[in-house]
Amino acid sequence: MAPSIYHSLLLPDLQQILQEQDEAAMREFCEALYPGVAAEVLEGLPPEDALKVLSQCLPVKQAEIFAFFSLHAQVAMVDSIEPERLSRMIEEMSADDRVDLLERMEPERVERLLRLVAQAERADIRKLLSYPEGSAGSIMTTEYAWLPSDVNVQEALERLRLQAPTRETIYYIYVTDDSRHLIGFISLGKLIQAKPTTNIADLMQREVISVRVDDDKESVAHETLKYGFIAIPVVDNQNRLVGIITHDDAAEVVQEEAVADAYLAGGMTPLEDSYIETPFFELVWKRGMWLIILLGAASLTAQVLNYFEHQEEMNWMVLFLPMVLASGGNAGSQSATLMIRALALNETEGRVFWIAGREIRIGALLGTVLAVVSVLVARLMVGSSASYVVGLTVFLVVTTGTIVGAMLPMALKRLGLDPAFMSTPLIAALSDMLGVLIYYNAARGLIGLM
Amino acid sequence: MAPSIYHSLLLPDLQQILQEQDEAAMREFCEALYPGVAAEVLEGLPPEDALKVLSQCLPVKQAEIFAFFSLHAQVAMVDSIEPERLSRMIEEMSADDRVDLLERMEPERVERLLRLVAQAERADIRKLLSYPEGSAGSIMTTEYAWLPSDVNVQEALERLRLQAPTRETIYYIYVTDDSRHLIGFISLGKLIQAKPTTNIADLMQREVISVRVDDDKESVAHETLKYGFIAIPVVDNQNRLVGIITHDDAAEVVQEEAVADAYLAGGMTPLEDSYIETPFFELVWKRGMWLIILLGAASLTAQVLNYFEHQEEMNWMVLFLPMVLASGGNAGSQSATLMIRALALNETEGRVFWIAGREIRIGALLGTVLAVVSVLVARLMVGSSASYVVGLTVFLVVTTGTIVGAMLPMALKRLGLDPAFMSTPLIAALSDMLGVLIYYNAARGLIGLM
Repeated sequence: MAPSIYHSLLLPDLQQILQEQDEAAMREFCEALYPGVAAEVLEGLPPEDALKVLSQCLPVKQAEIFAFFSLHAQVAMVDSIEPERLSRMIEEMSADDRVDLLERMEPERVERLLRLVAQAERADIRKLLSYPEGSAGSIMTTEYAWLPSDVNVQEALERLRLQAPTRETIYYIYVTDDSRHLIGFISLGKLIQAKPTTNIADLMQREVISVRVDDDKESVAHETLKYGFIAIPVVDNQNRLVGIITHDDAAEVVQEEAVADAYLAGGMTPLEDSYIETPFFELVWKRGMWLIILLGAASLTAQVLNYFEHQEEMNWMVLFLPMVLASGGNAGSQSATLMIRALALNETEGRVFWIAGREIRIGALLGTVLAVVSVLVARLMVGSSASYVVGLTVFLVVTTGTIVGAMLPMALKRLGLDPAFMSTPLIAALSDMLGVLIYYNAARGLIGLM
Repeated sequence: MAPSIYHSLLLPDLQQILQEQDEAAMREFCEALYPGVAAEVLEGLPPEDALKVLSQCLPVKQAEIFAFFSLHAQVAMVDSIEPERLSRMIEEMSADDRVDLLERMEPERVERLLRLVAQAERADIRKLLSYPEGSAGSIMTTEYAWLPSDVNVQEALERLRLQAPTRETIYYIYVTDDSRHLIGFISLGKLIQAKPTTNIADLMQREVISVRVDDDKESVAHETLKYGFIAIPVVDNQNRLVGIITHDDAAEVVQEEAVADAYLAGGMTPLEDSYIETPFFELVWKRGMWLIILLGAASLTAQVLNYFEHQEEMNWMVLFLPMVLASGGNAGSQSATLMIRALALNETEGRVFWIAGREIRIGALLGTVLAVVSVLVARLMVGSSASYVVGLTVFLVVTTGTIVGAMLPMALKRLGLDPAFMSTPLIAALSDMLGVLIYYNAARGLIGLM
């Protein structure tokens, strides 16, 4: 069945069940459905009703379903759950999901809650909470399957049955020595296909790709997806296995990064929640701040115009001002977009001069084409000498826009800043200033010449 | 070991091996390394050298490593491989990877090649090649693990050992009836934890989330990632299992979509390959086409200005023209960015009026703040009545820009077009025209009033 069908089919059923207070049916609802689908249907109910249904399920199911709610919905719901119930559920949640939730809750509440959580889980939570935001440690889970190297396949399978890690983390098994150093790797698929008497040491792959717990989470996530891994092991600075990052969390990090870049490209601070969930004044702040910065930049363009307008008396120039400025901004934002992408793929390294040369040639070619078009456009409205001024200016702003747009993201990267800050509106603001300078100087030069 | 270390350590070694023509060492290179890493190192060599190393490996390893090259590199390399070798390798490649490659090759060459491929593989390839681009069928693989429902766990494990699907596709096992209808699902993790005598029919999950072979590939990919699945089963219109889509391919589709949207947002046609790999004239075309369209839009702004400039004689207005136009464009592109994201999350459904109301309030608030700032800026340069014209105009362009920027992507979606076409440069071009109209009308009205 397609997942979207569930929602419309099951929500009315569930509302009926709630009205009849049919607890057996509520339990059945949690058990029969895939947790992600159950969560989707429950999100269609008011939070108190969703909690009523959840309370009829086993804690482990509760935790699985709860983990599929959006973080925003989770935080909104925890306030209505009694601390004892919540602490049971947190014990059952997977290590990375519960840390995501606790990081969003007030520290005081987390402390009160942790006192109710079992000792072993508590230590694990504190450990995971301690990794800095943005590190591989902050997105890893401590639930992984592991084996010593001196057992055979049959013993290994028995051990795995006992470890019984919840969810998806049993498919990749990591082999460690007595001090938990990561020494090998074997997949469950290979394990079940091997002879029961084979030793793990003879079967395991010894070259293991791992990441460090303090690595940047985004580059780790890209690494995991690039190789198509289900999970990637995370080690400390002494190569001791401390956790794994699973494919779904890696995909989430990469998606979040792409979304944040899209917001920056649109000229605003990235939202943490969706548009609908973001409060009004947060939205106003994240947009308004940038609009004021960009207005400030545009006011400098006004100053530059002020300088020239008092000197020249060529009214026709105004007509093509928006067109000339837009051409430079557009060419520049194309270059910046291309470079931000190339930087994300590490394509620019050792190629800065090659790229600069290429952009100069592309800029000159695009500038020539656009100059010809704009001379034709200007000719229809003003005289021929004026139209040449417009054409020359378009050529110059497109060429410089292209080069500057390509170089600025690389410069930001070199300064250790996020190249994605070079948004289209910011490039446009910079190129407006440059464009006015070029336009009036070109007019002065060319008209003087003729 | 971190993956980036491999490259710098192994490339010189490999060059040495090539110089000494040490075939045993070449074989060892392919066998010892993870295929993704081997591919990365080999990409540092000239294609003919990379092929020399590959030719020493077993066909199955060759195929695995080859699949990790970028599609662009693969297409460039196939021309240098003799057809017999290539057909062997294609037989060994995974079903989805080889179809990706063949889709990029010339149809004639594909036909010649397919004649050399084994009968069974050939039928599978033709079938997969026949699914339309953009459909779930075009990204699925036919390598999946399946079971009938009337076997027990022990028999199931024996069958799986025989099926021995390559790579990662053994972790989710689909249960089908005699006519291949999808009737259940079980994970390998659950299977190895169950008693050997339990029947699959009693163990399997009967509610299976599946997608249709003709579903849109992007929505299917989002579905797969949302639920954190390793794979999602693909069925035909009679619920018969025809393939699966794996998590890595789903993640790739979602990433490609995000990248394409980023190019559109920057005002250009999306690239298929990376910046470095894209040929010069393709780059010029994909940028130039949009620049000319945007120039055309800007020339309309020039026409509007022409109409007003002949009537009014207020030179100070020119000074603030870029600032006024930029403010409207920036506010509009923020709204458009937010809406494109909200549309991707299906957040707008049934909320169009709520969103419109919210954007009007946000636009009015942002417009007021920016108007105050711009009155202050204008006051420093021109008289007070002029500065009120600027303030009023900024208020009006920011408010209308915000609303129009929010509504246009929704309108595109309703027309069945990609909302991502509402790029920042296009919003800016539209808002420039609107801005000039507002600016000159506001000046006429307000100055007349005073």
